[in-house]
Order: sequence, then structure tokens, then C-alpha cells
Amino acid sequence: MNVTNVKAATHTYPVYVGKNLRHWTARYLPKTYSSILIVTDETVACHYLEDVKASLSQETIFSHVIPAGEKSKNIDIFYQLHTKAIEIGLDRNSLMIALGGGVVGDVAGFAAATFMRGIDFIQMPTTILAHDSSVGGKVAINHEQGKNLIGNFYAPVAVMYDVSTLTTLTRREIRSGYAELLKEALLADSNMYQSLIRTDLSSLTSQKLTDQLTRGIDIKAEIVGADEREANIRKYLNLGHTLGHALESMLGYGSRTHGELVAIGILFTIRVSEKIYAVDLPYEQIYTWLSDNGYPLQWPSIEPEDILVKMKKDKKTINSTIQMVLLQGIGHPVLLELNDDDVLGYLQRFQQELNYQNE
Amino acid sequence: MNVTNVKAATHTYPVYVGKNLRHWTARYLPKTYSSILIVTDETVACHYLEDVKASLSQETIFSHVIPAGEKSKNIDIFYQLHTKAIEIGLDRNSLMIALGGGVVGDVAGFAAATFMRGIDFIQMPTTILAHDSSVGGKVAINHEQGKNLIGNFYAPVAVMYDVSTLTTLTRREIRSGYAELLKEALLADSNMYQSLIRTDLSSLTSQKLTDQLTRGIDIKAEIVGADEREANIRKYLNLGHTLGHALESMLGYGSRTHGELVAIGILFTIRVSEKIYAVDLPYEQIYTWLSDNGYPLQWPSIEPEDILVKMKKDKKTINSTIQMVLLQGIGHPVLLELNDDDVLGYLQRFQQELNYQNE
Ligand SMILES: NC(=O)c1ccc[n+]([C@@H]2O[C@H](COP(=O)([O-])OP(=O)(O)OC[C@H]3O[C@@H](n4cnc5c(N)ncnc54)[C@H](O)[C@@H]3O)[C@@H](O)[C@H]2O)c1
Ligand SMILES: NC(=O)c1ccc[n+]([C@@H]2O[C@H](COP(=O)([O-])OP(=O)(O)OC[C@H]3O[C@@H](n4cnc5c(N)ncnc54)[C@H](O)[C@@H]3O)[C@@H](O)[C@H]2O)c1
Ligand SMILES: [Zn+2]
Ligand SMILES: [Zn+2]
Repeated sequence: MNVTNVKAATHTYPVYVGKNLRHWTARYLPKTYSSILIVTDETVACHYLEDVKASLSQETIFSHVIPAGEKSKNIDIFYQLHTKAIEIGLDRNSLMIALGGGVVGDVAGFAAATFMRGIDFIQMPTTILAHDSSVGGKVAINHEQGKNLIGNFYAPVAVMYDVSTLTTLTRREIRSGYAELLKEALLADSNMYQSLIRTDLSSLTSQKLTDQLTRGIDIKAEIVGADEREANIRKYLNLGHTLGHALESMLGYGSRTHGELVAIGILFTIRVSEKIYAVDLPYEQIYTWLSDNGYPLQWPSIEPEDILVKMKKDKKTINSTIQMVLLQGIGHPVLLELNDDDVLGYLQRFQQELNYQNE
Repeated sequence: MNVTNVKAATHTYPVYVGKNLRHWTARYLPKTYSSILIVTDETVACHYLEDVKASLSQETIFSHVIPAGEKSKNIDIFYQLHTKAIEIGLDRNSLMIALGGGVVGDVAGFAAATFMRGIDFIQMPTTILAHDSSVGGKVAINHEQGKNLIGNFYAPVAVMYDVSTLTTLTRREIRSGYAELLKEALLADSNMYQSLIRTDLSSLTSQKLTDQLTRGIDIKAEIVGADEREANIRKYLNLGHTLGHALESMLGYGSRTHGELVAIGILFTIRVSEKIYAVDLPYEQIYTWLSDNGYPLQWPSIEPEDILVKMKKDKKTINSTIQMVLLQGIGHPVLLELNDDDVLGYLQRFQQELNYQNE
């Protein structure tokens, strides 16, 4: 088992990564709680809820199952979680456990952050993508008009990452998670990048997965430890997300996964970086790897003009100026403000390129 | 003008108290903001919204008016505030101003705390009670099943308290606010208590009010500066609120004010303290002052048994044991866990006493 410690404003918390951790939950609790509410989604509940329950010896264990998928990250489910917490009598000495992917982690984390102004919570990620979402203390729900617009910075007391749960993921979810690993590699570690680009997602070994996840978590932990509230370097984690988020909210959540759209966003970032910094970046290599591993890379039927409008509504946007994370090389991210006309031009050229490559 | 500095976990913020501050809002902003959203309620909007708008020179000023009263502290208004913020394009460099009483401060503060995971906000309290609610960083909305159950600790960047706005308060609201001042005096300052008990609320001078408010704010600032997250001494501020909150949520908000019910809670606290600590406390003097100043002191038609159940749902309750703040003397609060039977007995006796005194 591997442990990484993450520094938050309020406290430092451990991220445990290992096999079968879900059978030993009690062992990793930082203290005794008066009661525990496990929040999970329907799919994850079928696979793992009973294991986690059984691994907690105390009697006051409750669970709440929400529908699977991004649509659960809304204000109604948030309020439902509060209702549940009140009805089962959670108090300030209680714990919430978020057992699931980024959706469960984000909505349950936000409920924990706001229930009685904040109770302890533990992230038990069960997707690859959630190696990212469970570390760093961002919790949120979506507003109808935009993703993650309502939330808090609220660090968990621990993250327990049982990599054995990843065996039941679909290939789509594996791809989704690997886009974030690719992002982390591009931001900070060219060795990791070299390893990733040689990884065939259809024949992933548990050891390779664990190694890459651990490295991804370390990169994220280092960044958020230096800048939890995203005043500066944490913004780098937004690589590929300016376009990714805009596409995601315009397509409606579900048609493509978060990571699949981030992957397109990463390609876009690379093209823009090449134009602006006249650097040589491995666009073709990444494109090929994504394509070989089944990422859908067709341009979705959305007009660049509309994307631009959406990008300007992103919460990273300040004074309506679009900020993008670009690369001056692998491991050399920069943050740049771009004017609307330039962004539109880049989007149009990129649309043509993707259309052409996918003909 | 008076300034008190309040220490929060994240930063220290000034509380400005003085006359006509609302005409000089721009002067007190800690920095330049990309845009400003003023949140207020219908009543306060009529009196003061235009003044505040006029006192801000910049062009990107928006306002959002919510219905007056406790019923606005709910999840729908909270979501509405987010919708408004998105539609007018607030970003992370924007400011929210809460112009109003505790209701506006709590719901707008919670919206600011959660919009894009937190933007700056300023409290501009306009009720006496809000000298309390605007200091200390507690923000929240109510759940149908209990008061302030959904919220955050989120400190404002400044509090601007224009005491000139207090001239339009109704007598009911003056009473409501003075109950909190009485609470603060009992917790920490017998001189202030002596001054209060000689104050006739129907002929309050602006100077006396300002002095007492300033002292109240200082007491609150000292307590929350030492214990923002209510791990220990901040709990003292709950004096009179265990019963007060229970009655408030059972009566439905509106029939009596928060402070009027806290006043009854304070009387109850004193009776329980006398029983448990065999101390002599000025019950009669307080009762007379409350009564002379028009506080409704009849026992509401609610059974003690039902109150007990409600008290146990209070978010200060841990492991379902009722905690009360008691007094070993003026300026000597203590926190005590009480068993249900004892609390029930005290409630029954107190009910009889109030009924008898009000015959
Ligand atoms: N908080 C952050 O810092 C942060 C960072 C990145 C992403 N996110 C958020 O994370 C969310 C996406 O996370 P996600 O991709 O994990 O989505 P998700 O939670 O919806 O999980 C994806 C799907 O996989 C299923 N699933 C989960 N674990 C499984 C398992 N072990 N076996 C089989 N199926 C399983 C789920 O039921 C779901 O249908 C987005 O809402 C995004 O905004 C948050
Ligand atoms: N956050 C905290 O630490 C804290 C502490 C104590 C109380 N509170 C909360 O504060 C709320 C009660 O605050 P409140 O009593 O100020 O209620 P409020 O905001 O509803 O104001 C009371 C009434 O007075 C009106 N009003 C406000 N200012 C006025 C003015 N200058 N002139 C004329 N009318 C005016 C309002 O429109 C309203 O009808 C409760 O919800 C309580 O939970 C919070
Ligand atoms: Zn992402
Ligand atoms: Zn109060």
C-alpha cells in the first residue's frame, strides 16, 4: 500500500492507495465517529457497498444510494443528502463516506462540507478519474447553466483508494480517467508521459495502473499542496478543460465522458501552444494514442462561435477574458489570457483539422 | 466611526460601525472588483438600496431583491442567487454585498461562499440583531427540518455597519436584536448588563445604541477570534438558543422573532443554572426588563415533550445528548450536558412558572 500526504489549508490528509482496501475501512478511520453515512451510486452500490459496510464494525452505519451519472450532481440530490443526514440523526461527530466516482465524491463532499457547516468526510474513489477528483478538496454540484458552479473547497480527512474496485470499470470509464493521467503527465513528468503513451488501455495490468495512478496523485498532491485555492499554479490542472468543460456542458452530460472531452481539449491546447510558442509538441503521437485506445475524436456538431460564448462563462474566466493553460514543452505549463478573436480562430482551424483527420 | 478587527481562519477583517456609512461604500472596499452584486430584501431595498448603489462609483453594479423574512433563507432563494450571479456574469474577482438583516446576511453569505467555490462578500447589516449574525463567519440556509442546517464557515472581507439604518426598524426588531445584546452582556460583561437593564428600548438614543452595539460586537469578535469553528468557547454564544431555536422552528418562523424566543430561552437558562449551580441570578430583574420592553413572555402552546424532541435535533447536539450553556454568574458561562429527563423536568416547571407569571 502507498500513502501520499496532501496539505490542505485546514489539515493534512493521507491518500491510501492499495488493493482491497475496502475490506478494511475501519482500520483507516482517523478517529471514532458517532455514526457514518455512506453515499454511493446505484452501480457502485451493487459491486461494493456491502463490502464497505461489512468492513465497518460499528452499528450506526447508514447508506444512501443516488442514481449513477453526472445528472446526480444537482441541487436536488444535494438537498436529499441533507434530508437523509437529518433523518438518520447525523451530528457534528459523524462521518460521511463518498464511495464512487467523481460524481459521488463531488456531491457527497459538498453535502459533508455544508451539513451543520461541515462534518468529516472520506473519499473512497472507485473510478480512475476519481484519483483526480478525490484529491485537492474541490467539491461541487452543477448549476443548470454550468458545471461545478456551486461548491466549496473542503478537504476530506482521508482518501482510501482501493484499486481493486477498478476492475469492474467499463472501457469508456478507463479512457475517461486516463485523459486526466495524460494531463498530469504533460504538466509535470515526461517520463510518465513516455510510459503512458506506451500503455495499451485494453490490456492494463494492475501494477501498471497502480503505478501510474500513484504518480498522478503525487503530481496533483504537489500542486494543490502549494495552491489549494487556485490562486496560481493550481490553474494548470485546467489543461484541456477550457474546451473540455465547454463541450461537456453543451453536449449535455453523458453523450461523451468528461475525460473523452478533456482529451479533445488537450489536443486543442497543444495546437494553440504550438502556434503561440512555436514549440514542437507530440500532437501526432498523442492523437494516435488516443485514437488507438478508442477515444472518440470527431468534432461534435457544435459551432465554434457557440463554444466561445460558453468558454467565457467558465468559472476560471476573469473579467470575461478566456484564460488557457498552454505548454511550452512537456512539464512546462503556462497560463495565458487570449482574446476572443484569436480563440475563435484557433477553434475554427482545430475543427477543420479534426474533421479532416476523421474523414 | 469605530473599527473592530475580527480574526478568522483565512484572514482578519474589519467591522466598521458608524453613522451614514452606506453613503460611502466605495471607501471601505478592500480592493477593486470586476463587478458587484448587492443582495437585499424588499423592505430594506425601499429604504437603502439606492443609497448603496449611488455610493459605488463603478458601473458594473447589480442588485437582487428577495422577499423579507425568515422564509427566504431556503434552498430555492439560494439557487436563485446563483442563477442571478451566473446571468450577470459574476466571476472570481466579483463581490457580493449582503445589505439587510440576518436573513439576507446568511443566505447571501452562503451564496457567496459557494459561488465558484467562494467569492468575496461584505456584510452591511441593517438590523440590531445582525450585529451578531454579520460577525463570525457563519452563513447558512434552513432545511425544512431545522434551522441553519445547511451552511459554511465563511468570513466576509469586511462588515460595514451603518447605524443610521437602524432608525427605520420596528419595535419588534429592536427587541429581537436586544435579546442578543443581553446574551452577550450575560456571557461576558456585567457593566454592559447593568447598562442594558437600565435601557428603555422605546427611547433609545443613537449614542447609547452605538455604544452597546460596539460592545456587543467586541464580545462576539473576541469569542469567534478564539474559536471560529465552535470547538469550545464559541458554543457559549448559544446561551438561550437551545430552547429558543426549538421554539422558533416549532412555531414556524414569523409568529415571534428570533430574539423574542431567545429571550425566553435566556430566562429558562437562568432557571436551570440556579437549580444546578445554586447561584443567585437576576431572573426577576431580567423578566421585568423584558416585560417592560414589550417582549411577549407567554409560554407558547407547545408541549415540553415535543420541545425536548426538537432540542435533540439541534445541530449543537452530539450523540443525541442535549448541551446547554448555563451561567455560574454573569460573565461565567459553562457548557453542560443534560439528560433528557432532567431537561423535561426543567421545561415543565418553567412552563408552569411562565404561565403563572402571565396570568
Ligand atoms: N473535484 C474535483 O477536483 C474534480 C476533478 C475532476 C473531475 N471531477 C468531477 O468528477 C466527475 C466525473 O467523475 P467520474 O468519471 O468518476 O464519474 P462518475 O462518478 O459518474 O463515474 C462514472 C461511471 O462509472 C460508474 N462506476 C464508478 N465506479 C465504478 C466501478 N468501480 N465499477 C464499475 N462502474 C463504476 C459510475 O456508476 C458511473 O456510471 C465529474 O462530475 C467531474 O466534474 C471533479
Ligand atoms: N450567522 C449568524 O451567526 C447568525 C447569528 C444570529 C442570527 N442569525 C440569523 O439571523 C436571522 C435573523 O436576523 P434578523 O432579525 O436581522 O432578520 P431579518 O433579516 O429577517 O430582518 C428582520 C426584518 O427587519 C426588516 N429590516 C431589516 N433592516 C431594516 C431596517 N433598517 N429598517 C426597517 N426594516 C428592516 C427586514 O426586512 C425583516 O423584515 C435568523 O435567520 C438567524 O438565524 C445568524
Ligand atoms: Zn477533469
Ligand atoms: Zn441568535
